[in-house]
Order: sequence, then C-alpha cells, then structure tokens
Amino acid sequence: MTDSCFTPHPFDAAIALTPAGPQAPNDFLGATQPAWQNMVGPFGGITAAIALNAVLQHPRLLGEPVSLTVNYAGATADGPFTATARPVRTNRSTQHWIVEISQPDADGQPQVCTTATVFTALRRETFSASDMPMPAVPAPEAVARQPLPPGMVAWLQRYEMRPVSGGIPMQWEGQTHAHSQSRLWVRDAPPRALDFASLAALSDIFFPRVWLRRARRVPAGTVSMTVYFHADGAMLAGSGSGHLLAQAQAQAFHQGYFDQTGQLWNEAGQLLATTHQVVYFKE
Amino acid sequence: MTDSCFTPHPFDAAIALTPAGPQAPNDFLGATQPAWQNMVGPFGGITAAIALNAVLQHPRLLGEPVSLTVNYAGATADGPFTATARPVRTNRSTQHWIVEISQPDADGQPQVCTTATVFTALRRETFSASDMPMPAVPAPEAVARQPLPPGMVAWLQRYEMRPVSGGIPMQWEGQTHAHSQSRLWVRDAPPRALDFASLAALSDIFFPRVWLRRARRVPAGTVSMTVYFHADGAMLAGSGSGHLLAQAQAQAFHQGYFDQTGQLWNEAGQLLATTHQVVYFKE
Repeated sequence: MTDSCFTPHPFDAAIALTPAGPQAPNDFLGATQPAWQNMVGPFGGITAAIALNAVLQHPRLLGEPVSLTVNYAGATADGPFTATARPVRTNRSTQHWIVEISQPDADGQPQVCTTATVFTALRRETFSASDMPMPAVPAPEAVARQPLPPGMVAWLQRYEMRPVSGGIPMQWEGQTHAHSQSRLWVRDAPPRALDFASLAALSDIFFPRVWLRRARRVPAGTVSMTVYFHADGAMLAGSGSGHLLAQAQAQAFHQGYFDQTGQLWNEAGQLLATTHQVVYFKE
Repeated sequence: MTDSCFTPHPFDAAIALTPAGPQAPNDFLGATQPAWQNMVGPFGGITAAIALNAVLQHPRLLGEPVSLTVNYAGATADGPFTATARPVRTNRSTQHWIVEISQPDADGQPQVCTTATVFTALRRETFSASDMPMPAVPAPEAVARQPLPPGMVAWLQRYEMRPVSGGIPMQWEGQTHAHSQSRLWVRDAPPRALDFASLAALSDIFFPRVWLRRARRVPAGTVSMTVYFHADGAMLAGSGSGHLLAQAQAQAFHQGYFDQTGQLWNEAGQLLATTHQVVYFKE
C-alpha cells in the first residue's frame, strides 16, 4: 500500500534499506537519520535494528530471529552506509548470518563500523516457561512520563519512557549508589506495533549503568550487545503498540568496561526478550 | 621451554593452532581431539576457546579480550579445521574481530561450522565494583566431586566439578522443578593455570537448564554463547589453578529455545566473567 501523502514512522524511515542490486545480492543501502542522533553517531539501538533488518529483508531468510549480537566497532558518520548480510550456514530449520555495516573511509575504501551475527530459525511448539517473572510494578498509566528537557540528544524523543525505579539521577553528586538496577515502561513515540527490529532497538534504551551506580555522568558507549528473542512473531503481534517493562542492571564494573543484563516484558507479563551488553566507560 | 618427554595439557592440545602461512595470514590450522568429544562433535566450550585462541595468536592482536560471542552453526566433524580470524576494525585502544571456523564439505569446499566475534582492548584502571557478589557457599574442599559413571561423554573427564546446588537430576521423573539454577565449583582436570581461553571454555560447562527445570533429558545444544571478561590477565594469573564458582540459570523457555545467564567467580570472590547463551531444545 503506497500513498504519496504518507510519512513513514521515524523508526521505519531509519531502518529502511534498499537492495544494492543483483551484482551484490547481500548488500543493502541505507542512510543515517538526524532524528536518531546520539552524542556520537546514531543511537546504538537503531544500528542494531538496521543490522537485523538487513537479514529480515534478505530473500534467503529462513525463519525468525532467535539471537542477535551487534558489535559497535566505530562511530557511524552522518550519511549513507552499506549493510552486508551474508548467510554463512543454512541448515534444515536454522540459519546463521554475519552482518557488516560499512562506510567509505577518507580514501573511499569501505570501513567497517558495525559487525553483527544473527541466528534465525523455524520455531515449533515445545515446553514453555519463564524463570524470570515480571516484577510487580504500577501500570504504565500510573507512572509519569520522563520529561525531555531541551538540548537532549534527538533519539530520546523517539521513545515514551516512564521510569518506575532507578531513574536517571537528578543530582550528580558523585556518590556511589547501592545498586545499578533500572525499571521503566517504554514504547516507541509515536506508538508503533512491536516487531523484531523495534524490540532489538528497545533492548538498548537504558542509560549507562555507571551513571546510576556512581551518580556521575562519565563518557560511556556500548561495545557489544546481544538480544535473545523469546517471542515469536505472533507474540510480538499480540503485544501491539503497548508498553514494555524494561529492566536492566550491571553485574561488574572493571578497568573501563561494565556489563548489563536486561529483560523486556509486554504488558501481559510475557518475557519477550533478554539482553546483555558490555559498555566502555571512562574513569 | 621444550622437552621431548613433555605431554601438553589436554586443553592446550585441543586449542593448539598453527599459522597457515604468509599466503593466508588470518588462517590457523587445528584438529579436533577425541578427549573433548561431546554427544555430537566437540564440547562447545573448547570450540569457543579455539575461536578465541585464533585471535590471541594473531600477530595483529591489540590488548586483551573483553567480549566473545560464539555461534555454533553446524556440528564440527572429527578431523582438521581452519580457524580464520579477521581484524575488521582497529582503533587506538580497541579492536574488533570476526572469526570463522570451517571444514571441507563433501565437495571439498570450505563449510562454516562456527562463527565468532571478539572484542579486544587495552584496559586501564577505573572505578571498579561488583553488583553480583559471590553467593555464600561451602568451600570447594567441603563439596564432593561429581562422580563420572562409565559411558559418559569424554569432555566431562576434562573437568573437576563439585556441584553445590542444582546438580544434574538423579531421577528423571519428568516433573517440573521450581527453578533452573545451578551452582558448582569447577576447574580443569588436571588443574591448569586459568587464562582467557580456559575461562571461555569454562563458561559452557553447565548441563542444559531444561534438563534441570523438567527433570527430563531432552536433546539440547547451544546455538550462541557470549562471554564478557571482567578479569584482565593479571586477575586471571592471580586465580591460578584454583576452583571457580560457576552459577547459571535460565530466564525463559519458549518454542524450542531457552536462554541461560551465568557468572564465574574465583575462590577470592572476584567476578571474572559473566556469560549468556541461547540453547536449542526438543519437545
């Protein structure tokens, strides 16, 4: 369905990819969008969604995503990029992918700024259980939306965030907190029906754990993020454009890097994804 | 130091790689070892260690491993393999790698059986903290070693395991357990000084969570594993050949896949690594 008056959702505009053509069947062309700008380069979540989307758009795709790991190798510059998705192994019901996103360097040679691996599979009904029930929290409607002071980075406006606990410190007194756990309700702004790409992006919405733990805003940036999709397409469709409860906490901070482990549940309490990342921090 | 009477430790024999030569500077040659055999192909932990070792042996290596993701794309057949480690992006103090382990297919063409991404970095002193203290458990000497009945897969003999809680079910009655958490003391058998490669392998020593949760032994196999190294080389050296406390639990089981989140501490209570994996299971 096309409509010349139709403006795509900012998320769809950001992850849009065009096949490079029959000469390069694994290559897809895209471009960064100012609406998703972070401090340096785009929001990491949108880069994860782009890497995943290259696989989702590939004509050889088998099944649905189960696992995604994205490595942020260098800042993405404003402008066009090429996402190359290579199916390295296809089995009867599973498929393994390597993705590289590159941009031309000063000499016009492609330079890799992001790598990813993706595992997709045809899923089937089995035993099902969650060992990580959704914590008891107030409903999204009962939680105030995080205000966005002027001057914040652009991508924060792409999400409706309702911090439940462990919100971004209001005072940067530099004292050590007792924990690094945050819980918030979150969804796309404006609301958009959940899919694999947007769930991948939502897995990266947490502010750096080191800011919470230290109440100190130090430079920090994700180095590698992994998302395990527990939801299949039908469960995502059932989540619609509702809020997700997102929870994250660090496990260790040491010599310039900390990790973060997280969970995302839909409003019905289904655990849709678990996610982990390792993050660079200074000082 | 070489000694013609010296037999290498089984772990070192298994991860040994030989450079393929100047024509293929990213290729390293190895071979599977019967001592590490699992049900189908080798123990996944040793494959992770081999993928990491290809990076560690590469002359262009910068720094120490911070993050490793290994994807098990297909069973490794008994025999030789080629590990290709490609430094895709080198920055001032960080480096990103893509690794592929391949074997010839029936037509002699290389077929990828494992992919990995590795992030290495020069580390420096910063704020340091753990938000995941080691649980209070009896000392390793106070916990009985897991007996190895005859007929078990070979790789289990390569580890000294002392289950603290959540041991492998003694009765397979098929009833659902209340949790999926296991804790055990573990180290190489015979003992061997800890390093990055052995810590990567140790991250995969847990039996499938679905066996514990259901008390039912169903076919299961790791699809993707990530290890975040919080320890630097000095902290590993300080751990020596002591036991590690290893803890793992599932978060969700759904449609043929479950995830597992884990931690490994040394006897001094330092959190050396956190690890996650997603695992295929049948039924």
